[in-house]
Amino acid sequence: MSEQLKTPTVAAQAGGNGYKPQPTNKKWVYLFGEVKEAEAAVGGSWDGVRALLGGKGAGLMDMTRQGIPVPPGFTVSTEACNAYLAEGNNFPPGMWEQELAAVKEIEKLTGKTFGGTDNPLLVSCRSGAKFSMPGMMDTVLNIGLNDEIAETMARLTNDRRFVFDLYRRLIQMFGSVVMGVPDEAFEVVITSRRELAGVKTDSELKAQDWEVVTRRFKEIYRTFTRSDFPIDPYEQLKLATEAVFKSWNGRRAIDYRNAAGIAHDLGTAVNIQTMVYGNIGNNSATGVAMSRDASTGEKEPEGDFLVNAQGEDVVAGIRQTQPLQELNDIMPAAYNEFLTIAGKLEKHYRNMQDMEFTIENGKLWLLQTRDGKRTAQAEVKIAVDMVEEGLITKEEAVWRVKPAQVDFFLHPQLDREALKASKKIASGLNVSPGAAVGMIAFDADTAERWAKEDGRKVIMVRPETKPDDVHGMLAAQGILTSRGGRTSHAALVARQFGKPAVVGVMELEIDLDLRQMVIGELTVKEGDWISLDGNLGHVYLGQIPTVVPDIKNAYLIKLLGWADEVRTLGVWANADYPRDAQRAREYGAQGIGLCRTEHMFFETERLPIVQNMIMAKNVTERNEALDKLLPLQRGDFDGLFRAMDGQPVIIRLIDPPLHEFLPSYEELVQRLADLKVQLQHFHTLSEIDEALSEIRVKQAYLERVEALREQNPMLGTRGVRLGIIIPELTKMQVRAIFEAACQCQKDGIDVQPEVMIPLIFHVNELKVQQTALEAVAKEVMEEQGVQVNYKFGTMIEIPRAALTADEVAEIAQFFSFGTNDLTQTTFGISRDDAEAGFLVEYQQRNILEENPFGTLDVAGVGKLMKMAVEMGRKTRPDLEVGICGEHGGDPKTIAFCHQIGLNYVSCSPFRVPIARLAAAHAALAEKKSK
Amino acid sequence: MSEQLKTPTVAAQAGGNGYKPQPTNKKWVYLFGEVKEAEAAVGGSWDGVRALLGGKGAGLMDMTRQGIPVPPGFTVSTEACNAYLAEGNNFPPGMWEQELAAVKEIEKLTGKTFGGTDNPLLVSCRSGAKFSMPGMMDTVLNIGLNDEIAETMARLTNDRRFVFDLYRRLIQMFGSVVMGVPDEAFEVVITSRRELAGVKTDSELKAQDWEVVTRRFKEIYRTFTRSDFPIDPYEQLKLATEAVFKSWNGRRAIDYRNAAGIAHDLGTAVNIQTMVYGNIGNNSATGVAMSRDASTGEKEPEGDFLVNAQGEDVVAGIRQTQPLQELNDIMPAAYNEFLTIAGKLEKHYRNMQDMEFTIENGKLWLLQTRDGKRTAQAEVKIAVDMVEEGLITKEEAVWRVKPAQVDFFLHPQLDREALKASKKIASGLNVSPGAAVGMIAFDADTAERWAKEDGRKVIMVRPETKPDDVHGMLAAQGILTSRGGRTSHAALVARQFGKPAVVGVMELEIDLDLRQMVIGELTVKEGDWISLDGNLGHVYLGQIPTVVPDIKNAYLIKLLGWADEVRTLGVWANADYPRDAQRAREYGAQGIGLCRTEHMFFETERLPIVQNMIMAKNVTERNEALDKLLPLQRGDFDGLFRAMDGQPVIIRLIDPPLHEFLPSYEELVQRLADLKVQLQHFHTLSEIDEALSEIRVKQAYLERVEALREQNPMLGTRGVRLGIIIPELTKMQVRAIFEAACQCQKDGIDVQPEVMIPLIFHVNELKVQQTALEAVAKEVMEEQGVQVNYKFGTMIEIPRAALTADEVAEIAQFFSFGTNDLTQTTFGISRDDAEAGFLVEYQQRNILEENPFGTLDVAGVGKLMKMAVEMGRKTRPDLEVGICGEHGGDPKTIAFCHQIGLNYVSCSPFRVPIARLAAAHAALAEKKSK
Repeated sequence: MSEQLKTPTVAAQAGGNGYKPQPTNKKWVYLFGEVKEAEAAVGGSWDGVRALLGGKGAGLMDMTRQGIPVPPGFTVSTEACNAYLAEGNNFPPGMWEQELAAVKEIEKLTGKTFGGTDNPLLVSCRSGAKFSMPGMMDTVLNIGLNDEIAETMARLTNDRRFVFDLYRRLIQMFGSVVMGVPDEAFEVVITSRRELAGVKTDSELKAQDWEVVTRRFKEIYRTFTRSDFPIDPYEQLKLATEAVFKSWNGRRAIDYRNAAGIAHDLGTAVNIQTMVYGNIGNNSATGVAMSRDASTGEKEPEGDFLVNAQGEDVVAGIRQTQPLQELNDIMPAAYNEFLTIAGKLEKHYRNMQDMEFTIENGKLWLLQTRDGKRTAQAEVKIAVDMVEEGLITKEEAVWRVKPAQVDFFLHPQLDREALKASKKIASGLNVSPGAAVGMIAFDADTAERWAKEDGRKVIMVRPETKPDDVHGMLAAQGILTSRGGRTSHAALVARQFGKPAVVGVMELEIDLDLRQMVIGELTVKEGDWISLDGNLGHVYLGQIPTVVPDIKNAYLIKLLGWADEVRTLGVWANADYPRDAQRAREYGAQGIGLCRTEHMFFETERLPIVQNMIMAKNVTERNEALDKLLPLQRGDFDGLFRAMDGQPVIIRLIDPPLHEFLPSYEELVQRLADLKVQLQHFHTLSEIDEALSEIRVKQAYLERVEALREQNPMLGTRGVRLGIIIPELTKMQVRAIFEAACQCQKDGIDVQPEVMIPLIFHVNELKVQQTALEAVAKEVMEEQGVQVNYKFGTMIEIPRAALTADEVAEIAQFFSFGTNDLTQTTFGISRDDAEAGFLVEYQQRNILEENPFGTLDVAGVGKLMKMAVEMGRKTRPDLEVGICGEHGGDPKTIAFCHQIGLNYVSCSPFRVPIARLAAAHAALAEKKSK
Repeated sequence: MSEQLKTPTVAAQAGGNGYKPQPTNKKWVYLFGEVKEAEAAVGGSWDGVRALLGGKGAGLMDMTRQGIPVPPGFTVSTEACNAYLAEGNNFPPGMWEQELAAVKEIEKLTGKTFGGTDNPLLVSCRSGAKFSMPGMMDTVLNIGLNDEIAETMARLTNDRRFVFDLYRRLIQMFGSVVMGVPDEAFEVVITSRRELAGVKTDSELKAQDWEVVTRRFKEIYRTFTRSDFPIDPYEQLKLATEAVFKSWNGRRAIDYRNAAGIAHDLGTAVNIQTMVYGNIGNNSATGVAMSRDASTGEKEPEGDFLVNAQGEDVVAGIRQTQPLQELNDIMPAAYNEFLTIAGKLEKHYRNMQDMEFTIENGKLWLLQTRDGKRTAQAEVKIAVDMVEEGLITKEEAVWRVKPAQVDFFLHPQLDREALKASKKIASGLNVSPGAAVGMIAFDADTAERWAKEDGRKVIMVRPETKPDDVHGMLAAQGILTSRGGRTSHAALVARQFGKPAVVGVMELEIDLDLRQMVIGELTVKEGDWISLDGNLGHVYLGQIPTVVPDIKNAYLIKLLGWADEVRTLGVWANADYPRDAQRAREYGAQGIGLCRTEHMFFETERLPIVQNMIMAKNVTERNEALDKLLPLQRGDFDGLFRAMDGQPVIIRLIDPPLHEFLPSYEELVQRLADLKVQLQHFHTLSEIDEALSEIRVKQAYLERVEALREQNPMLGTRGVRLGIIIPELTKMQVRAIFEAACQCQKDGIDVQPEVMIPLIFHVNELKVQQTALEAVAKEVMEEQGVQVNYKFGTMIEIPRAALTADEVAEIAQFFSFGTNDLTQTTFGISRDDAEAGFLVEYQQRNILEENPFGTLDVAGVGKLMKMAVEMGRKTRPDLEVGICGEHGGDPKTIAFCHQIGLNYVSCSPFRVPIARLAAAHAALAEKKSK
């Protein structure tokens, strides 16, 4: 979509877009039937027609072509809009004349006359740009009415109430939408009229009431605009057309385009269409409907309609609408015709449709159709169903479901059934997905205290959040704020830590002194339960049960199967334990891209042995501890190899700094102080002895912890540096790997071990470790009498390793990008400190578009990766390259990995399905771009 | 020098060097007079002749050509050596025959006969490779003697003592050097002979004694070699020639070549030369001399000689030598001839010469000449003098003095005069330059305690050092170890921290229990004073005064002026204060490349204001503190601009994290605990009040310090991150810069301010700061009614900034590489933790060749820099690029900076002279390579 700019600038607005005067014979106006003319004007592409006539105009033209009953009308092109704006708000030559001629054509088609008193033609006027966007001019209905015509119509229809209802709507809409009269001025008239008439609803008002209202509306119009309501229908049409054009450059429209990344030089079209009346009696109706269930994806149309109403009433929610199916009871013919048309439209657009319709005296008219919005669950089911219905190809189905939608199947969701009985109390921006249920806490300290000390589930509610609030946000289930937008502190932090969040709930008034919040007339106290739907941005009162949607959803599995057929990028998983490996395989992983051996060291029964190893006073003591660890590690690897029979398993040697395995400095100081106090109260020798002995041990720990302390542990003695300084540790781990591999192979397992060295910055580090590894591997294989094929490779997670990848590849048979550390070092930031700190401010101020720990920074980190891949493959053409950082599960990053030719991405087992789909998208995108 | 390999391997030794059989008519042997033949053989280059005949052989040939009296002789080529080794220790065809023919030629020239009894010709045999290297075969003198010839010579010379002294020397040297007989076996014979004769020195032994000694030597020879001493002079010559060839592949020679990076396939030549006798009576002498003073560079020959002695006696130190000048009294003709020859050789070689000479019966012979070794001081003076004498060009003078030699003028040195009266007790490896004087401490804790608590000056003395010793090394003035080599822990750490050090002093026996060290018969106790000369690796007893050589040395200044004419790379200095700027200018800096504004914040009177700024509860409080800082900072910049009138001054906005300005966490906790204890003892209300108030303040500090604490402060909220988060701070600094600049300009100063933003990783950070800066700059300039030209630029010290330099250069008008941080992030290491930690082990194990914080890592960090320069200049061709990290003063790094086209390097004012010379070297090297 070339019209979508990455960073739109206001300077690119019409006027500054190189507009040139157009020939006077240019066609500006297209009847809905003029498909060929429109196609010819843009060189035949339907996308061009959509650009020329806007989405709505193109849709109406398309429906007309298919013989679907669409009220006749025409579209003034986006080119006309651009010309109008460029020429200082003047219609381009010939445009108005074409519009007048088009009106004549409609008159012919309808047998009615615009501005005529015989059979008056009324029209609607709507804006319609290429991309649907709020902030532009709304609809003006019933254009063409004035006092005289109203009287004629009243005579013709014999329904004075109907006509003056139309007339007052025209003045209200024209006044507010075209002339900017505050809508409240009109509303107050109706309200007082209802009071005077002693009725509760508009539908109870009589013809006479609407006549009075119409008169008052004209007075309001005059008062505000200092001119009379235009009685000339053509004047009405002209002003409405201009109003649409001008609304393209309204503040809200520009803001929206800036935010959505839509180019400012597209312009909007204007759609003029014959009015049909759903409010002309009980054989008339108006409604909206989806061709399938937008929640579940079931092949069952759903919708709402109102008998005897005009379109806007359905949306306004003044009257209780009826479900679509009941139309079958009232107007079965229209209902059946609608079903037929819905089916036809689905076939035509090869997608679920969202339609507006009106029934005028039993005759069905379609006013709009567009692809319907739907839940992730529905998206998947519809895509799969449509393939099976022959409507779309597998590739299209795969392309249609966005990887982020698979996320839905992973997060807990509010239970759909329970929701029906629940009270939605507010809505805001859906900035972080998932469901959260908890008790309201109005500040971070309370949230943290309740969560940590009392084990309560908490929703933190604040007007907005600041960096000081992060500890509360982390302790909470979810976050709710009354202020802020998609890039507010709350939104960014919530997304970064995977907390469901709803922000910018404007109707929420938080009173921190009274510890309560007020929504309209509802007051909710601190400690009360609420539930958040982060997917939709909804807030519910009470404790709504949650469900985890089934990742093994049959439709999803089918779709992912098709994705696998498309993708070329492998999807592996990060797994430390056999059970994780098992799950990864179930989700479709094709190998283990990262087994973090040190995770096993933290297990309760092992940690003391690891600590003995660290505290060892000499190599003998160290080896004693390592000897105890050996069989345990061997067992870990054995399980992993068996689980991944026939697939590669990348095992990374120990990575974190040793102090992580010891108690913290603060903890030890505290314990020693306590022990010394206790000592004073002990009396028996054995008590004192025991305490002294613990003091001795703890003091030794303290000394070691102090010695291991580093100013910047992230950049300290970890990774390969540790393996080089403590070669015995490397030897033990390698021995465990090869003993397990040999045994598995003897047992008939197809083992494919790959040993990975972390954190290298120089090929020489790899050489040292290779020598150590080869010696042990050879030794073990000779002991066991088995030859195991293995690979030796390295993480690329330090800029220097990437920059010297040609040298590194001389030793390494594979690379695996550790993009977490690579991002930290390439940016010079510490994730621990930055992510809830200045990075948030950076995103809010648009210094960074995205959190580089969430989505890979292509310009910097990505450039290093691309260099490393190219240089590495130059040295070793069959170099296996993957990514095992957290980015490996991020769709945008996966697309990049595909582009630079990685062999695989490796991510958390839970994200394997997302990655499979994202990899397929990357392959399809490449295909499309060719 | 293409023969010098970077990483020599033993596999490259002769035999594996692709040797091919040579034509039988090939010339292997060259008489000293065969200059044309030698030049023809190598295509005319003198460097080729040196490769063919070795340095010594080429020198003898060269002197012969100049008509200087050189005893006739010939050289067997290095090609012959390689052929010999390649053919399994067989002379190549024709070689021996050519050697025999050459002997005949010598016989003609001297009128003597080799192996003849008429007028016997004796010869010496010496090895000589292209590069001078120890570990190969030493000299064998007096070849050609046997019993019969000895008797003849005794008759001819009428000096039996002289002849048998020659004869015993032949057997001794031939035995030990050619046949490997332990020298001690011979020495013991002489010693017992002296005892028997009742004399103290060899010169008191009579002819008869030497006859006995000669007989005994032959017996020892037979006992050890199981063969008789060869009585055939040609056999002697042949064996000696072979021994030289074989010594090329001796263990020590190979080790030396590996260490020095000399190729293993060069081979050695063999020099056979007529013996002349300095021991043939009191009209004979032998000596060594330099053509100028090697210590001071004064144009005054210096040397030593012995009357009636053979060359080896001068070096052996058995007899007290006489200073060269005294030769004038004894043999004025020979002395004057020597002066003439020395002058001639200097002119010829255009360098100070180190010569060996012998006077035989009043006739002067030159045996060797080579460029003389000299001190840095002498190097500079000689280079400058020789330019003024018209001997060399300015460029040659510049090229001849190594940048590291300028270092000499910066470090304290042991006082030369005082040294004469001091006792040198030992020598070792000179691994870190400068002089250190202090009391011996035998462990790190003692060293630290003495230095810190008692303020004593300490020399830490250990058998070797370990990482645990670093605190002691840092506290000490210098380090002395008995073990270890150039890459030992002690050597590496000493160099890294600039501590003078002597290591590997083998004669040193340290007894840690007795707290003493023994050197021979000397015992030195802990606490005794010693002095180290790190330049030469000498250890002296006692407290020797030190002097700082004058960096304003007139010769040095002249030389640096010439360097300036040659170099294209600018040399700027890092200076924070006007006094530093002043010094930098005096030393030749052309601008300030880095002014660290925050250094001024640490000054006593300012720190409390800075702390108030950090502790501010709101923007108003913060601004109050900043308002107080403004005039102070303005004053700093004002002084800097005035000092650098007409030159650019790069001012970097605040860089370090805020917590650095607050008391440490530990300090605050301690103080609070103390205060609370004190509180219990206070009685008056005012005392209590005061204590409580301090507690309140300290508690607030503690909270702030805790909030500012970061896990990895190096990667934390510092640099531009701070400037963005606290915009008021940026504004204050920019205002101070521009207020000062405007005022200076009004006062007629040519101000050239350049404002630099630290630690960016994204161009957007720069944009934000540019906007802030431009607003303030404009405001100030309008207030002051002055327009100041300035530049806006950035540090490049984060990999991402380098990787996106094209984008960064859209905003930045200049780059300055902060290679310290860039090295840290590119390697993923923290200098604080690594440099005395695993990096030492990495260097010891050759994983890293050099400390990347000392010399720039060209392969990684340098690659990023090169990319950044290229990409930056693509965007902005006139981009100014420099380096302001510590590497900016390192000669190797400066060479690289020249290569990648930087505009300047900026370093400490003290290193400016070194940088000027290094920059000139870089330009000359480029010129030479073209």
